[in-house]
Order: sequence, then C-alpha cells, then structure tokens
Amino acid sequence: MSTRIVVIGADATGMSAAHQALRSARSHGREVEVTVLEATEHTSYSACGLPYWISGEVPSGDDLVARSPEQHRAMGVDLRTGARVLRVDAERREVRYRHGGAEQVLGYDELVIATGAHPIVPAWAQVEGVAKPGLGVVKNLDDGALWLDRLTASSGRHVVIAGGGYVGIEMAEAALARGHRVTLAARSRLLSMLEPGMSALLADTLKAAGVEVLLDTAVDGVDHDDQGRLRAVLAGARRIEADYLILALGVVPATEFLAGSGVPLTERGALRPDPSGRVAPGVWAGGDCCEVRHRVLDDWRYLPLGTHANKMGRAIGENLGGGELVFPGALGSAITRFSAPGGYLEVAATGLNLQQARAAGFDAVEVVTEGTTASGYHPDAAPIRISLVGDRATGRLLGGQVLGGRGAAKRIDVVAMALWSNLTAHDLAWADLAYAPPFATAWEIISLASRRLAERLG
Amino acid sequence: MSTRIVVIGADATGMSAAHQALRSARSHGREVEVTVLEATEHTSYSACGLPYWISGEVPSGDDLVARSPEQHRAMGVDLRTGARVLRVDAERREVRYRHGGAEQVLGYDELVIATGAHPIVPAWAQVEGVAKPGLGVVKNLDDGALWLDRLTASSGRHVVIAGGGYVGIEMAEAALARGHRVTLAARSRLLSMLEPGMSALLADTLKAAGVEVLLDTAVDGVDHDDQGRLRAVLAGARRIEADYLILALGVVPATEFLAGSGVPLTERGALRPDPSGRVAPGVWAGGDCCEVRHRVLDDWRYLPLGTHANKMGRAIGENLGGGELVFPGALGSAITRFSAPGGYLEVAATGLNLQQARAAGFDAVEVVTEGTTASGYHPDAAPIRISLVGDRATGRLLGGQVLGGRGAAKRIDVVAMALWSNLTAHDLAWADLAYAPPFATAWEIISLASRRLAERLG
Repeated sequence: MSTRIVVIGADATGMSAAHQALRSARSHGREVEVTVLEATEHTSYSACGLPYWISGEVPSGDDLVARSPEQHRAMGVDLRTGARVLRVDAERREVRYRHGGAEQVLGYDELVIATGAHPIVPAWAQVEGVAKPGLGVVKNLDDGALWLDRLTASSGRHVVIAGGGYVGIEMAEAALARGHRVTLAARSRLLSMLEPGMSALLADTLKAAGVEVLLDTAVDGVDHDDQGRLRAVLAGARRIEADYLILALGVVPATEFLAGSGVPLTERGALRPDPSGRVAPGVWAGGDCCEVRHRVLDDWRYLPLGTHANKMGRAIGENLGGGELVFPGALGSAITRFSAPGGYLEVAATGLNLQQARAAGFDAVEVVTEGTTASGYHPDAAPIRISLVGDRATGRLLGGQVLGGRGAAKRIDVVAMALWSNLTAHDLAWADLAYAPPFATAWEIISLASRRLAERLG
Repeated sequence: MSTRIVVIGADATGMSAAHQALRSARSHGREVEVTVLEATEHTSYSACGLPYWISGEVPSGDDLVARSPEQHRAMGVDLRTGARVLRVDAERREVRYRHGGAEQVLGYDELVIATGAHPIVPAWAQVEGVAKPGLGVVKNLDDGALWLDRLTASSGRHVVIAGGGYVGIEMAEAALARGHRVTLAARSRLLSMLEPGMSALLADTLKAAGVEVLLDTAVDGVDHDDQGRLRAVLAGARRIEADYLILALGVVPATEFLAGSGVPLTERGALRPDPSGRVAPGVWAGGDCCEVRHRVLDDWRYLPLGTHANKMGRAIGENLGGGELVFPGALGSAITRFSAPGGYLEVAATGLNLQQARAAGFDAVEVVTEGTTASGYHPDAAPIRISLVGDRATGRLLGGQVLGGRGAAKRIDVVAMALWSNLTAHDLAWADLAYAPPFATAWEIISLASRRLAERLG
C-alpha cells in the first residue's frame, strides 16, 4: 500500500519534504505518492532574493526560482498550483481546497503543513485584504514584480519604508539603487535586536548613503488624494509626503485554515513540531508557519528563516519515507548587509542578545570589542565590532553579533558553532582559527572578543 | 623575593609571555622581573606581513611592528637587543649570551625559550651560513628590507622562488606586483597538503596571472658568474636563467643553543611543552621552536604559526605570574590567498587531510563539494570548493580545506570550530549558520559539504 502524502505549500519546506520523502521511501523500500497543493503559481523561490531582483543586481525573477513547477512535476511530485487550502480535518485526514473555482477534498495518510508566513498588513494599509494604492509588501514573486515595475517606471520618487528589520534595510538599498529618495521609518531602532551601538552605526551608514532614517517612528496611516493616489504616510502627528510605502513590518504564521482542524496552534497561531517534525498524529509541519526550539534558550521561538525551513523540510521528508532524522533546533543566526555608493556595512547575529539573555533568567554580561577584519597594516582591513554575551554562572557563551566592513559578518558562524556546542567564552577564545594578514589579526578578533568576555565572566 | 624571569626571543611568544607575566604577577600579588634577550634589533613584528610590505601593499616595515623595543621597555620589560644566547645551563639556571662583543652570564629562576625558527638554507645556497648573492629567505625584517630593495631597484627581472608553500605563493604575488617575471618551483605540488584538485586549481590561477609554475621540481643548485652574480637556478638537469632566487623552503626550530643544556629536544630539534608551557623544571617554551599537540591526532606536530605562538606566550606568562592557563593544542588552521590582476584565489585548511588521516590510522573518507560563496543568482557569488575528511568508524569530522573566490577561505573557521568540539559531519551539517543571498546559499556550502560527507560515512 502506497502512503498518500499531501503537502500544503510549495516553497522551501514543502518541496524539500516532498522530494526527500520520495528519496527516502526509495532507499527504505517504501511506496509513497506525494501531492503538493500550492495557492500561487510559483514554487521554490528565494524570498530573500527579492530585494536584489528589485535593485537590479539579479537580472530576472526566474533567477530566484530554484525549481519551477514543471521541474518538480518531472521529478515525480503531483504538484497542483492555484490550489488554496480552505480547511484541514485532522480526524478524517482530509484537506478541502479550492482549485479553479471548485472546491475539492483530498484524503491523506500523512499531511505536511508548509504554508509559511503572511506579511503583516495593518488595517489602515488595506481595503478588504488588498493593500491600498502605492503600498505593498515584499514577500513573494508577485510582490517583487510589482515593486520592480513601480521603482523602474521612473526615478526620483519618494519611497517610504515602514520597518527597520532586514527587509526594510534591504529594500532601502534597492530603492536607492533605482534612484529614489528613501525614508526608512523604524518603530524603535534599526534591527532592534542589535546592541544599541551597532544599531546606531547601521543608521549612520544608511544616512551617509542618503537614506532619511526616522527612529522611534511607527507608521500608522496613509493619506490618498481624490484620485486614490498615495499622497502621504502618517506616523503619529508626523506627515511624510510619499509616492510609495513599502510595508516591511514582519510576518505571522500562515495557519488561519487550521482553525477547528484539531491541529494545536499557539496563541499567536504558530505550530510547534516535535524534533521529527510532527505536530499531531499524521500531521507534520515545518518552516515559517512554525516556531522552532531555540537551543540556547531551550524554549520555543518564532524565527522565520529560510535556513530552518529547508532543514525542517528535509527532516520531515526523510521521516515520511521511513528514515529517522531530527531537526536539532536553531540559534536564530541571521545576516545581512547594506551596500550603496555612500556606505557599506555587514551585520549578523546569533543566539541571545543581552536583553534576551537577561529576560531568560541568565546572569548575562555583554562585552563589545572593536578591531579590524584583517591585520591593521593590510589594505583589506575594515573596521569590525563584535558583541558577545555570556553567562556569569557557567562562563557559557549565550550569543553574539558582528558588524563591520567587507568580510566582517560571516564571522558570526564561528560564534554560532560555539553556541551549537555549548562552549564557554574561554573555549572559544582559545580555538584555533585561521590567520593571515589579509584575513585576520594574529589574535583573530573573535578570539580577542571572547577572551575579553571570558575575563569579564571571571 | 622577586622571581627573575629571563625570556629568549622578543617576538610573538616571548613578548606575550613577558607582558602577561607582569600583568599576571600584579593580579596575583607576586613580584617578577622580566629580562628579554633578543639577538636582532627588532621586536614583535609580523613575519606573515613581509610579502605585503615587499609587494607595496603595506607602505613601511614599521607598520609590521606591533611594538618597538622602546615601547616594550616603557612597559617595564628589561629588553636587551643584539643579545645572542650561546648556551643554557638548566641545572645552574644560567644563560650565557653575547652582547656588544662581550659574553655575559645571566641567572634566572624561570626561563622562557621563544627563539622561533630558522628558515631552511640548503648547503648549496650558502657560504658559511650566509646566502649566496642574489639569494635570500623571507623571515625577518632585514630579509624584508633586502627583498624590497632588490625588487624595487628595477623591474622585469626574473625572480625564481624555490618552494610551493604559503611563503612561496605570497612572494610570487609580491614579485609580480613589482613587475617581475616569476617562476615558482615546487618540490611536489603547490601547498602539497591540499587535496590534489585544489592544488591544481591554485597552480592554474598562478599561471593565469603570469607565473611560470614548475611542479615536482626541487631546486638543488645555483650558478653564479665570474663577478659573483646569480646567473641560473638549477633543478636536477634543469637550468633556469635567473636574477634572484627566493628560498621559501620552510623552517626548523631555532634550538641549536640548547645542545647540552639538559633541556630535552626531539630528534628534529623541537621542544615539547606540557599544556602549561613547561619543558623542564624552571624552563618554559612556546612558538615556532616547539611542536604543539594536534587535537585531532592527539599527537605532536610541528605547526609553526603565529597564532599558536601568541597563545602559548600568553599561557606561559599567565602561569609565570601565578595564574593557571593551559594551551589547549591546535588544529593547524591556516589560510592564504593569491591576488594578482590575472587571478584571485583564497585557500585554507584545518585538521587532517585524507593522507594524514589514513596515516594516523583513521578509516578516513574524503568528499569534495563545489558550490558558490553567495546565492548563485547574486553578483557576489564566487566559486568555492570544499574538501571534508571524516572517520567512518565514528562519523567524526577530521579535517577540511576550502578554496575559492572572495569570501571563501575564512569559512575554514567553521570547520575548525567543528573539529575543536569533536563534532561529527552530521552535527556540522545541521548547525545553524547564517544565510542571506550576498553571503551564502540557503543550504550554506559548508552545511551541504558536511551533509554529503555524513551520507558517505553512513
């Protein structure tokens, strides 16, 4: 008997799960048939790449597509695009979905929920679920195409971005690259999880490149003219004349269709899969509709990132085919950069910042260290700033952040590896990292930073 | 009673030990006096930086000096330059040295041997210890000044380099940058510890930049004309017309003055300090005159690298002042790059390669993975090639190598961190590394490479 696997959502988690299930079943001598229901016409695209398409660095939206629907089908997946799931009945193991105007019901033995996340669109920004004219999010390929059209139709417009997170900063870069005037309004600081000094340096870099940066500014309204054209963006008493408003306010789990399904959700609508990926008997979930286990906190956190999505999908698929693979949790490692003629800055973070560590009950200490990415005398040397947070009770490293010039931010992976293995700051300080003048100082800045933290932890 | 500490050698290990001893003694309420004997007039310089000074990237030799003799003295160290140690008597705790023509004897309570290494100068290349005309090594600031003079006096000369290691490759870059014709003769391959495919790619890059690369070519003689000017470099039956010959044949521990001292040496003249840095009662040693414990092999290896030198010096100094600090061994992490108008390539290695792993008795498997440093569609994406070696018996990672374009090689630190914590290939594959399109693929190439290795290890 062939196991009927139904996957909802054809992006990173869903398609990883689909293909890995086929591979795993083959290697375990099992039979599976995999049906994927996808609401849009797109599959396996890089949402993270949208800003670089809009900016012009990536020539075509097709470049962002790892695998097209045709390719997935050729690999043995029954992929149904334009199929929006309406309801799941976990008891009867049925999915109800709309496809080409008609409602259909599909039975399954195993269900994979991989619906990702919805971008947040506040009530003031929409009319019946549709963003008002001149406004838009940056989530999928259709959004990308829309912003590409808008930002290349003319230059010199005033683009306002609401949100100081990764997408907001990347879109500021894209809008600048297209020759627009850019205002970025952040509810608090830029990348608010950053150590405040880093956040300020990031804001300075955006300003140096010509971006107007408004901190502690929550956009809460828009004003359209009689023709329905965007005229201004409102933030409290503030009125910002604007041609466009990019909404980069974060995402929430796309799980509304699970109401009443019998599949348990958190208050905020997230799924919490066990390490194998299971959320209920016969139901699996992964990706941005889920929380993940944070390894430093040993608790659940909503960390919607493509890296986990791929890994969770793979684990689910392997397990569906008869294997045994565990998603071992995450650290929240993330990275981005801002790059414009007037400024270049890389930034990355992993684990807990000081505030998060203290909130979690750690006796946490933060040390900020400044240095260079290469030997000070070498022309490739760029400034770098590292924040490390450690636990006074155990000496253990709890998190880190890196900000700096070219070559700075990917060093975060060294901190991530230390967290992954529960190392102390002292352990990290003495690890054998590679040195040569174009790449590091003789005491690599990460070693120096962790040595200083170890000394502070005593 | 003040402890009399005598340090031999005023570079990374020696001066780290000297200053840390003073700091440590202060914090432990002890009294120490530190005398440093240095044969040359230079202190604390970056030997690794010499090629970048000779190439012109670093404007002055002074830039390579982290701290001058005056600075060290101002910090409380009794530094005696031009003081060459002739003999150590570990029984009587005395050092005999020559200073300004006179021999002097200095008693000590604790002795630190930090004499580093001598560059190898074969018998055919020297006359009574002095390199023949047109020949030279690249080891200290005087060597740097000599090559700077020679290579900037004119351009278009033919510079032959004997040795395909790090220094040989870096000097090829420097000689090219100064407008010379360059031939690099390597005894076997370029960076012979590299996976052969990587070594070949490196050779291709040097060739593309205009370097004549001669593999399996051991230089074994020189021919000078009647005026004593270098005419040709000889390698077996091969005769290479040449203006200069750079000797980059490696180094040996500088321990000849310890003959008969009572301090134990290996057959090859190296010291083997215990984790605290001690080699005999009252005698400590660190840096390039020592072997280090290789953490993957759990055995001694001669890995003369500045990173260990600094760390060992710090540990010794801390312990001399009353603290307790252990040098936890090394992995042999190393990195370099070749950069010229015609080609750019970064390369790095850590832990064991396949051959070393098998020689050490591991049931070792190597997997080579190719990919890109950034998302394939992103303009910053450069090719990257990763070799990972693992142990079939335990699944444990044993070593790795990385070669590629800008941003490739420093990823070696992630592999080093995995080795540092004895992780399996599977552990590394699932670690939470940072992803964004300008910095990585969604499955970071290191994760992908280790996943493939884990699959092969079964």
